[in-house]
Amino acid sequence: MTTAEIVSIGTELLMGEIVDTNAYYLASSLRSLGLEVRQVTQVGDDVERICEVLERSLARSTVIVTTGGLGPTADDLTREAVARVMAQELTVDRDMLASIEAYFRERGMAMPPANVKQAWVIPSATAIHNARGTAPAWWTERGGRVIVSLPGVPAEMTYLWEKEIAPRLKARFPGSVIITRTIKTFGLGEAAVGEKVQHLFGRQNPYLGIYAKPDGIHLRLIAKAATEEEARRVIAPVEAEICQALGPLVWGFDEETPEGSAGALIRERGLSLAVMESCTGGLLASTITDVPGSSDYFRGGVVSYTNEAKVSAGVDPALIEAHGAVSPQVAEAMAEAARRRLKADLGIGVTGVAGPSSLEGKPPGTVYIGLAWDGGSRAVSVRYLPQRAFVKRRATVQALLELVRLIKESANKS
Amino acid sequence: MTTAEIVSIGTELLMGEIVDTNAYYLASSLRSLGLEVRQVTQVGDDVERICEVLERSLARSTVIVTTGGLGPTADDLTREAVARVMAQELTVDRDMLASIEAYFRERGMAMPPANVKQAWVIPSATAIHNARGTAPAWWTERGGRVIVSLPGVPAEMTYLWEKEIAPRLKARFPGSVIITRTIKTFGLGEAAVGEKVQHLFGRQNPYLGIYAKPDGIHLRLIAKAATEEEARRVIAPVEAEICQALGPLVWGFDEETPEGSAGALIRERGLSLAVMESCTGGLLASTITDVPGSSDYFRGGVVSYTNEAKVSAGVDPALIEAHGAVSPQVAEAMAEAARRRLKADLGIGVTGVAGPSSLEGKPPGTVYIGLAWDGGSRAVSVRYLPQRAFVKRRATVQALLELVRLIKESANKS
Repeated sequence: MTTAEIVSIGTELLMGEIVDTNAYYLASSLRSLGLEVRQVTQVGDDVERICEVLERSLARSTVIVTTGGLGPTADDLTREAVARVMAQELTVDRDMLASIEAYFRERGMAMPPANVKQAWVIPSATAIHNARGTAPAWWTERGGRVIVSLPGVPAEMTYLWEKEIAPRLKARFPGSVIITRTIKTFGLGEAAVGEKVQHLFGRQNPYLGIYAKPDGIHLRLIAKAATEEEARRVIAPVEAEICQALGPLVWGFDEETPEGSAGALIRERGLSLAVMESCTGGLLASTITDVPGSSDYFRGGVVSYTNEAKVSAGVDPALIEAHGAVSPQVAEAMAEAARRRLKADLGIGVTGVAGPSSLEGKPPGTVYIGLAWDGGSRAVSVRYLPQRAFVKRRATVQALLELVRLIKESANKS
Repeated sequence: MTTAEIVSIGTELLMGEIVDTNAYYLASSLRSLGLEVRQVTQVGDDVERICEVLERSLARSTVIVTTGGLGPTADDLTREAVARVMAQELTVDRDMLASIEAYFRERGMAMPPANVKQAWVIPSATAIHNARGTAPAWWTERGGRVIVSLPGVPAEMTYLWEKEIAPRLKARFPGSVIITRTIKTFGLGEAAVGEKVQHLFGRQNPYLGIYAKPDGIHLRLIAKAATEEEARRVIAPVEAEICQALGPLVWGFDEETPEGSAGALIRERGLSLAVMESCTGGLLASTITDVPGSSDYFRGGVVSYTNEAKVSAGVDPALIEAHGAVSPQVAEAMAEAARRRLKADLGIGVTGVAGPSSLEGKPPGTVYIGLAWDGGSRAVSVRYLPQRAFVKRRATVQALLELVRLIKESANKS
């Protein structure tokens, strides 16, 4: 397997001013290109130290990807360091200079003199035009080893990576294909999910990882093969075994989200949705409306943070009196009131205790989720870890997944 | 200045499965303890490579902080690597073993045999009890150099860092005090804010950094001095100069948030709040209710994602007819209707186009924010970058900051 390293350059990283999301992005992307990342290093804006890191990385690995240090200021030293490691002279590339000047001209500005630096090049490096900014990338080769230098601004870095660098790396180091498959579950903790598929851990191909995420526990399979088709064949039986073992805990795959899955089902059935929420405080509506085009099926919501607000939105005060505002009965009544008031086919009601204080004698983390539809309603009660942000997020995810379950059930019946 | 390095251990980092937020947290914290971070390295679960990285780090720097690799499995190799670098034998610490067994017993479980590993220790290491999990931290010294080993789970890592490690480091390497001051602005972009304080960049003490965040542009001053008092004296005049130069663009400092500031002011004045929102889709209400105790002053909200929902919540349909749903008039009417319906002192109304499509001929990114109070109302119109998540977030922040401005103005008048 071709080996790779990532070198993130910038004193701001060492000062804890920014998170190095570039390294995370590149590590994931290098892996799916079939390269094995051996080390990631963050180093400051110091040409000696950058050279030291580059020399060591070149001694260990075939492909080195650097980010940062390509700006126009005196602190931007990546070009100087790569030139020194390659023992070559920096000169100005006239074409690149013209394209940087054009970038400024198009924005009605003159190019500041400092930016000349961004047109520098060395004989073994190819400068690659950056359509999103003024810092060109470099592709440098020496003795079969490659240094790729990218700007640190994430939007420019990912643009250059996807458009220019990833395709070149794929062509230069064809090797094997890597594909991943993520299986998303909700309802059990990491240890309990892990136990159900315990016998599948520890294999190399496909490799199985387990991760706790805000929308539940994810299982991720990584397969390596000569072709994509073959890699899929490696994954298929293990995926089937996982789905078999976890049954209804599995709610989605890969890029699917609870709000996206719920939205797609509602749209597919030509339905509409409205919500009334208390302990989630608007997060349920906000999550639903994160989906572009959700205005086609989402009628709206009510954030009923007081009993009075619940009643004025159509919940029977006698019900609150009899069972308390935090009760399955009120969750169902909220769902029904939302649907009726906003003339929607489906309604969700969420009531509970986000914390930090208890409410009506119920401890933080207690939540009731009501669902209402044309002809019926039901509620589920849950208990989350009593941490405010956690309760809001988990209750939102679960409400959406309960809705998905309801729509799928109704399809099975009809 | 005492030098430090961070070593993040775990193959999942190199596979791009998780972002190394631990390194970011530690870099920032080490800096405020007065230590200079020279390098951050991510390395996989391979004892040879971990040893190589530790040896090099020890040759360069005084304090090495590792995270990860302290779990009970065969992949958890940090203890083995540190023992090898120190050339010492691993033995079981009986007290630590008893406390790990107690951790499981309290949870009604027997300790799995693999966890014995977590009670290992070497002569030069002090094992530090972890009240949040089963992995003790290690503090190891050799020739005036320190290796601190922490678990990789962020909640356990930060707990041990704050409770145990930071105080020990402070005592062991007293040196100078570093303090930071963050000045938060909203309303202008990074370049424009930077230009207004341009002459303050480039100094070493206090050092000025500028960062684009979801709630606006932050300016961060870092000062170093022998005592905290002296460090504050270094910051004070520069902070005053920045506040002078930026005037009303400054809305807060350090840990302040728009929802926290708004909440504190509302509470202080004994007022209450209600909202009606369309393009923010519930994010405004959700952000307000992120504040613990917000139920004391937040009456609730309406997410009116259709014209019908706006009308049923009290907006005059003639106003929508005359000006369109995305108009300053309707934003004010929404604010007023929210306040009236939910019997609150203050109302916010937000209407706009989150995108991706235009609405009523208005392009994505167009937003009107209405404010209503006892005796009046007003609206501001804004235009954000037309990206859905960005529009939701920016409009939410701005609505809260407009409310803060209104409450402060009314105080000045009275």
